[in-house]
Amino acid sequence: MRFDLSADVATLTRAIVDIESVSGREGPLVDAVQEALVALPHLTVERDGNSLVARTSYGHGERVVLAGHADTVPINANLPSRVEGDRLYGCGTTDMKSGLAVLLRLAATLPEASRDITYVVYDCEEIEAERNGLCRLARTRPELLQGDFAVLLEPTSAQVEGGCQGTMRVEVRAPGERAHSARAWMGSNAIHNAGAILDVLRAYEPALPVVDGLEYHEGLNAVFVSGGVAGNVIPDECVVTVNYRFAPDKSLDEAEAHLRDVFSGFEVTVTDGAPAARPGLDHPAADAFVKAVGGGAKAKLGWTDVARFAELGIPAVNYGPGEPTLAHTKGEYVEIPRIFACEERMHTWLS
Amino acid sequence: MRFDLSADVATLTRAIVDIESVSGREGPLVDAVQEALVALPHLTVERDGNSLVARTSYGHGERVVLAGHADTVPINANLPSRVEGDRLYGCGTTDMKSGLAVLLRLAATLPEASRDITYVVYDCEEIEAERNGLCRLARTRPELLQGDFAVLLEPTSAQVEGGCQGTMRVEVRAPGERAHSARAWMGSNAIHNAGAILDVLRAYEPALPVVDGLEYHEGLNAVFVSGGVAGNVIPDECVVTVNYRFAPDKSLDEAEAHLRDVFSGFEVTVTDGAPAARPGLDHPAADAFVKAVGGGAKAKLGWTDVARFAELGIPAVNYGPGEPTLAHTKGEYVEIPRIFACEERMHTWLS
Repeated sequence: MRFDLSADVATLTRAIVDIESVSGREGPLVDAVQEALVALPHLTVERDGNSLVARTSYGHGERVVLAGHADTVPINANLPSRVEGDRLYGCGTTDMKSGLAVLLRLAATLPEASRDITYVVYDCEEIEAERNGLCRLARTRPELLQGDFAVLLEPTSAQVEGGCQGTMRVEVRAPGERAHSARAWMGSNAIHNAGAILDVLRAYEPALPVVDGLEYHEGLNAVFVSGGVAGNVIPDECVVTVNYRFAPDKSLDEAEAHLRDVFSGFEVTVTDGAPAARPGLDHPAADAFVKAVGGGAKAKLGWTDVARFAELGIPAVNYGPGEPTLAHTKGEYVEIPRIFACEERMHTWLS
Repeated sequence: MRFDLSADVATLTRAIVDIESVSGREGPLVDAVQEALVALPHLTVERDGNSLVARTSYGHGERVVLAGHADTVPINANLPSRVEGDRLYGCGTTDMKSGLAVLLRLAATLPEASRDITYVVYDCEEIEAERNGLCRLARTRPELLQGDFAVLLEPTSAQVEGGCQGTMRVEVRAPGERAHSARAWMGSNAIHNAGAILDVLRAYEPALPVVDGLEYHEGLNAVFVSGGVAGNVIPDECVVTVNYRFAPDKSLDEAEAHLRDVFSGFEVTVTDGAPAARPGLDHPAADAFVKAVGGGAKAKLGWTDVARFAELGIPAVNYGPGEPTLAHTKGEYVEIPRIFACEERMHTWLS
């Protein structure tokens, strides 16, 4: 099958939603997208696994990248899609098949855009980073992703969200010494000692840095705690796993240094991290985009694939019709008028 | 095979140690003990599973019970036994096969004791209470355990240890509300909230109650802590498992009331508990025993099967040649001269 890109964007969203594409099983959906794109003579289409890159070659001095992932979180008895009033319900409606529909409609309806455009559809965004299609392309085919500015059509309620906060997880270890719990004073209780780690977390005042005009909101939180040996043993180790969400005024190294400072006196082990991305709204293409779609911009607090473009030196923002708070919920839906609005504004920007 | 009870107590200890008897697999050891006991005409022997009760029937006005468990914790590359200088090394040497050897030597060498004696050898002391042989006998054959005073030959470095502290475990739950860790302020972090539970534990001053002349030492300790949902989620639950060791001036109910008071404001769930036992040293038989073996008495801080005798209304103490701090260690050993001393003192008491 192939999608009918001449249908309106709501009809197209629904057709995309009704092809299940849980992470790792995007093949049928990507096949249908590929067939629709190769039928467009102004595009050169390349496939890489279950990712697609379709590019115009007008020779304009500027190139923008529009990107979206094809996968969804697992179905939760929320397919096939259904319409109720102005809402389209179903797995992936908000995150982010409505954005994908906008992207495909732009590909079909802008045979002569004001800028060169690269359309990227990729797989495995909802799962571990090593399987992420955008990550793979950035590593193996970075030339395909080159551009001056990128828009990820992730759910943002059709408001521009700039940059993204970084994330780092560390294990903070409280020491102790084992003893029988009937003679606790012979040892040192690591769980009690971890109280000092929680003291730090409870007293921590997260920063609210302003970067390129957008206000971020950091956070330092325990996400796991574990300790204990047996029901009658004073434990000799307790580990608090802490997640630091940091604004794009800090590098990964600076984030780590901050955590080592905050938890000085404790053993701190970094388990994973992903850098923040500056909003890049000072770039002319980004500025033109924000002006064209209207509504101003706000800081993106979660981590998104925007950071992968930032690592390639490409300013990027999130902008899409979905409602972010509904992502990954059983009752996920998208407001249909917002899909049309989003398509129209982006079309205006690129015409 | 059957043990030669005419051998000296160190030789007998070694023979017992060299028959592996990890909890649940005491059969061969108990068979050999049974054969040795049934050969003694002054004893009536009953077997119940892998437990044995051998009794004299002189018709004296007083009956004492000597008891010991036949099982050990799992072997830890510490069998067969070996002798180095005055020490006998091996799994169970201290906990409590040296005590068992003393018990068997007394059975063999006191055909005409000053008191009636009940010798109890039981299984599964080192594992969950529902499999404990003494527990089973107390429930199904309490008449076999009747007596005026009991001595458990658990390791005490040949010093009388009276009573035992009770133990109670509770789960104390800190509440929270889930949120994405990039927007922590939308939720409430249960791990951070558990800091208040650790505050209570860190500030707690354990009581040192004196009961029947012996000083106990209570303790209130976290033995487990767990919380966390995912690496990017503010957790909505954190559970601290607390072990309370309490002196025999409190019942189980009083211990629970104390914990509910200490952790008021938190959800507290009792997961298990075992009552304390008063030392009972004011009983004439106990007093005579302490005088006979010398060295005074001290409070037992750990929980032992002494409490099971207390529940049957029988005052009981721990007294044995093993060194308690070596119990359950890979390098477990017993001081050989102490086994002889322990046998001699108890023989004197009962002659």
